[in-house]
Amino acid sequence: MPFQFDLIKKDTATSARLGSMTTAHGAVQTPAFMPVGTQGTVKSMLPEEIRNCGAEIILSNTYHLYLRPGHETIQNLGGLHTFMNWPGPILTDSGGFQVFSLGALRKITPDGVMFRSHIDGSRHFLTPQKAIEIQEALGSDIMMCLDECTPYPATIAETEKSLNLTAAWAQLCKNSKKKSEQALFGIIQGGSYLDLRRQSLEKTVPLDFDGYALGGVSVGEPKEIMYKITDAIAPLLPADKPRYLMGVGTPEDIVFGVSCGIDMFDCVIPTRCARHGLLFTNSENVVIKNARWREDNNPIDENCDCYTCKNYSRAYLRHLYVAGEILAMVLNTIHNIHYYMRLMRDIRQAISDNGFTKFKEDFLNKKMTL
Amino acid sequence: MPFQFDLIKKDTATSARLGSMTTAHGAVQTPAFMPVGTQGTVKSMLPEEIRNCGAEIILSNTYHLYLRPGHETIQNLGGLHTFMNWPGPILTDSGGFQVFSLGALRKITPDGVMFRSHIDGSRHFLTPQKAIEIQEALGSDIMMCLDECTPYPATIAETEKSLNLTAAWAQLCKNSKKKSEQALFGIIQGGSYLDLRRQSLEKTVPLDFDGYALGGVSVGEPKEIMYKITDAIAPLLPADKPRYLMGVGTPEDIVFGVSCGIDMFDCVIPTRCARHGLLFTNSENVVIKNARWREDNNPIDENCDCYTCKNYSRAYLRHLYVAGEILAMVLNTIHNIHYYMRLMRDIRQAISDNGFTKFKEDFLNKKMTL
Repeated sequence: MPFQFDLIKKDTATSARLGSMTTAHGAVQTPAFMPVGTQGTVKSMLPEEIRNCGAEIILSNTYHLYLRPGHETIQNLGGLHTFMNWPGPILTDSGGFQVFSLGALRKITPDGVMFRSHIDGSRHFLTPQKAIEIQEALGSDIMMCLDECTPYPATIAETEKSLNLTAAWAQLCKNSKKKSEQALFGIIQGGSYLDLRRQSLEKTVPLDFDGYALGGVSVGEPKEIMYKITDAIAPLLPADKPRYLMGVGTPEDIVFGVSCGIDMFDCVIPTRCARHGLLFTNSENVVIKNARWREDNNPIDENCDCYTCKNYSRAYLRHLYVAGEILAMVLNTIHNIHYYMRLMRDIRQAISDNGFTKFKEDFLNKKMTL
Repeated sequence: MPFQFDLIKKDTATSARLGSMTTAHGAVQTPAFMPVGTQGTVKSMLPEEIRNCGAEIILSNTYHLYLRPGHETIQNLGGLHTFMNWPGPILTDSGGFQVFSLGALRKITPDGVMFRSHIDGSRHFLTPQKAIEIQEALGSDIMMCLDECTPYPATIAETEKSLNLTAAWAQLCKNSKKKSEQALFGIIQGGSYLDLRRQSLEKTVPLDFDGYALGGVSVGEPKEIMYKITDAIAPLLPADKPRYLMGVGTPEDIVFGVSCGIDMFDCVIPTRCARHGLLFTNSENVVIKNARWREDNNPIDENCDCYTCKNYSRAYLRHLYVAGEILAMVLNTIHNIHYYMRLMRDIRQAISDNGFTKFKEDFLNKKMTL
């Protein structure tokens, strides 16, 4: 089945949209949040638990799977869906972000990026063609073009050079794509400069990708810049294609992004925070190791219907966390992923009910008064 | 509901028995294996997963829960069953074994044992009365008397002194027990000396406990001694009460113990081995990190119907283990606990079918030829 995006509804007061993506492994309602499964597993979660939390699509990382166990190994074992027992849609990144994060261990050339593995120091050369080859071997439903993720801060000249490289690579990625059942998204770069973002968009959109991402928006820049870029650029992207804000973000960031017309998000925040004992609620977030929960028989959030909140007290979760038990990470992650998924459901419901503006105001006010 | 043990069947060729225990939190078919939930959690497992593997009763450790989060805290939160969301039967040990394992951090007196916490160095005094008070606060279904776990090796004089202390404490435990819905088991000590084991038994059985355990049989002595003691002493225990071989053991040890008339076992082997990547099968055990599984698309055991074997390949489990993923521990533990539970079902079926002698021979031959 070819990839398809259906725009169901557009909010009148904001740029928020309600939509549906159809992939080879099922449908995804948008706006959607994708839990991150870096190494072929959303850390500590069974696939059934991910699904029970309401997730319809997950993200997995090309860089990590390429190095270990290797994309050819995964292909030989039936592809990533079979390998990790996740039958639903998967988006893979291109590996670029992780490679560029290696700093001194990588060197960019016009043809691609030379890097050394963080695991064993072995040398590799990632090209746009190779990024597609790896993602086709993994068999993900949505592939991402190899881009150069412009760091923050960067000068105008550096940023312009970088976005031109990204645009050239986008063309190479598109040209080397062989499998029609896998979608391919282009990535808009341009750093913190609005006109360069527009320039990147003008170079990328004519290549006619299945969807478009804003890249390099969660790379250490002040949050106002990320908000400014998202607000200005997202609405300029083609209305009939899904829009993906890469690596974002907090619940507040997501509500803001949706208001700008973003359809897809991914972030390690819910899973990583869970492992460090920070649990999300719609009022005050809970730092579970805090001694004040020692004898607290209430759930993390009495309004939450996740497995963890239905069955365990803050006191028990605190005990598990303080004792260093694995189950702490399991139960905390279930709660945080469920929280994010409920947030996305609430957002979609609000758009559907013509109530997104009020939802956004209420949500951000509640979070900001804490 | 008062504790009850029903002897359903006795094997004719061996001392193996089929039975059923009734506790305040449900029934347990024997011979039974109790997964160990040291700190109020069977490491890495949800209660539903424990139950789905076939476990009917778990063990939890008084020493750990007394120190953290504290037995009074657990009592205030509704007791251990509610606290950890395990509605089934729980056996708690007395805390003695862990305290004696502290070595230089503890000092034994006729009234009890003074020790320092391994967590914060705080001083505590564990008496027979206190051991019962803690277990009554936890609300376990089966409590154990505080015993002195005689180390190996120990002289005859040391062992005799030790078993006398254990017998005196057993009487104090019995006297201080207040709650009728919680069963209390006595513990036979006597080290590696058969006549001292008999002496301990003669002092303990007249106190009329709800069941009896062989203690100090898994404390570093050669396996032949553990087998000799179990073989000689288990059949001398009252036939109408459950018999518990503490801290045992490997699958082979369990099959042997059953043939001696043991009804209950507990051990950290399945869970600890799982976390270290050793996976049990009825043929060769699997060391999952081994490079030979890199592209192996088969389950751990093609004859196993556990969740892990039904859904994941050796290659995926190896990948998770090598990558240090939490899910490796989750999936490996599910398999090993399921393996132990299937072993117990097979044992019970064999006794029921008058085929236990053949089962034992086949099982031990298969394991020993590997």
